[in-house]
Amino acid sequence: MASTYTLNGETRVFYIVGDPIAQVKSPAAVTQAMNALGHNCVLVPMHVTPADFGRFISGASLARNLDGIIATVPHKFAAYSHCATASDRAHFLGSANILRRNPDGGWHGDMSDGQGFVGGIRAAGCNPEGRRALLIGAGGAGSAIALALVEAGATELAIHDTDTARRDALVARLKDRCGAAVHVGSADPSGYTLVVNATPLGMRAGDPYPVQVDRLTSDMFVGDVITAPAVPPLIEAARRLGCLTQVGGGMYAAQLDVMRDFLLGQ
Amino acid sequence: MASTYTLNGETRVFYIVGDPIAQVKSPAAVTQAMNALGHNCVLVPMHVTPADFGRFISGASLARNLDGIIATVPHKFAAYSHCATASDRAHFLGSANILRRNPDGGWHGDMSDGQGFVGGIRAAGCNPEGRRALLIGAGGAGSAIALALVEAGATELAIHDTDTARRDALVARLKDRCGAAVHVGSADPSGYTLVVNATPLGMRAGDPYPVQVDRLTSDMFVGDVITAPAVPPLIEAARRLGCLTQVGGGMYAAQLDVMRDFLLGQ
Repeated sequence: MASTYTLNGETRVFYIVGDPIAQVKSPAAVTQAMNALGHNCVLVPMHVTPADFGRFISGASLARNLDGIIATVPHKFAAYSHCATASDRAHFLGSANILRRNPDGGWHGDMSDGQGFVGGIRAAGCNPEGRRALLIGAGGAGSAIALALVEAGATELAIHDTDTARRDALVARLKDRCGAAVHVGSADPSGYTLVVNATPLGMRAGDPYPVQVDRLTSDMFVGDVITAPAVPPLIEAARRLGCLTQVGGGMYAAQLDVMRDFLLGQ
Repeated sequence: MASTYTLNGETRVFYIVGDPIAQVKSPAAVTQAMNALGHNCVLVPMHVTPADFGRFISGASLARNLDGIIATVPHKFAAYSHCATASDRAHFLGSANILRRNPDGGWHGDMSDGQGFVGGIRAAGCNPEGRRALLIGAGGAGSAIALALVEAGATELAIHDTDTARRDALVARLKDRCGAAVHVGSADPSGYTLVVNATPLGMRAGDPYPVQVDRLTSDMFVGDVITAPAVPPLIEAARRLGCLTQVGGGMYAAQLDVMRDFLLGQ
């Protein structure tokens, strides 16, 4: 895909670093969004393995015109460790996906996955405020979404994960942080008004559903972080039942503006 | 200036590294030239100081989709030291301005400044073959041009530099390498048919001329490596006398195809 942007010796550079990297769509989207605001910037894909990430970032940080970094899978936890300063939510999550320079050149990190998810479901007509939410998956994406949901006013949050240790740890830490009723959940969505899949279940043909879809009802909003397939099986099932839904692509789209504004220091 | 380029997660990345970097024009030109051949590539400006160059390159080399580097002032000698293999001319000059990957990921270097200069004067109607050449300046650019001129068939090459040690060293090394009559010259162009300035003289208002312009004659071809001003005083004087000329911009233009083809491994 071709895109139109400014490119010359004065162009300020941003990296998106991942492994793999070929699937990312933000280089064109973020570059165009920055150019549309009048900034001479380019977001460049960089393919770096986990073993090389630390040394790559240390070297890259020496470039005087590298103004920001987007860290994508699997580098979000490692990226946090390179931050001199970070937002409260990045500290809470121990991960960062967007880094920009402090005045002294060090990195300031934030984590926008949760904001992206909430922005996506808002755009699809779901305000988390007052919702009873069931979240499946307490990993990196799930933790970010859990925090964003309680910060956006969900009154109840149940968390289900087959890894019970990380599930219980996330429940305990969220309870300490906020007033919402956070507790352990299950794969049964009965009684919730917002159901979120933050596991990879549905990426591969033959995956089981992440929740008991026969217990979904049309008053539930159902969200999923999966971007490939574009409409995963859980969302297909929810739509057949008449639920409003949001797919991973919507979360991504909502995150673009957040990323652009953070990276530009706005 | 905005142009249309291909940019996505599969884009192969090339850096141009310099200090300063804001003045370079190749990011757009080389990116467009690669795109025009159907390659999904981008040439990104990177501003790196000499003190940081080694660590920056070591880190950057870890990126799996970084396929090549253009080193510009003042990094051409340091870039050579990062090459696992290099062309004969890069070895002779001890410098490299274009680096691409070997199959094992190490860097293979070449030095295209001399080819660029010769390509530029050829395009302006001057074949070096059989010429009696006077070169002013035995630094990095001058050395590359000296080698390219004798390789292109100049039968005589006189070299003038106020730094007599580096002048004499270059004369001696070229004599060892080729059959051309290489010797020490002066600022007097009398009797030569090709006169080249490879010093910075003419960049600043009030600079003396690099050669005795009152001894230029219309049968001489006069070339200059300076790119700013676009037409330096030496070239203005030569044109007034009716000489054919080539400016630094022409050397740069002729070098673009050389760089593109080398970086693409063609």
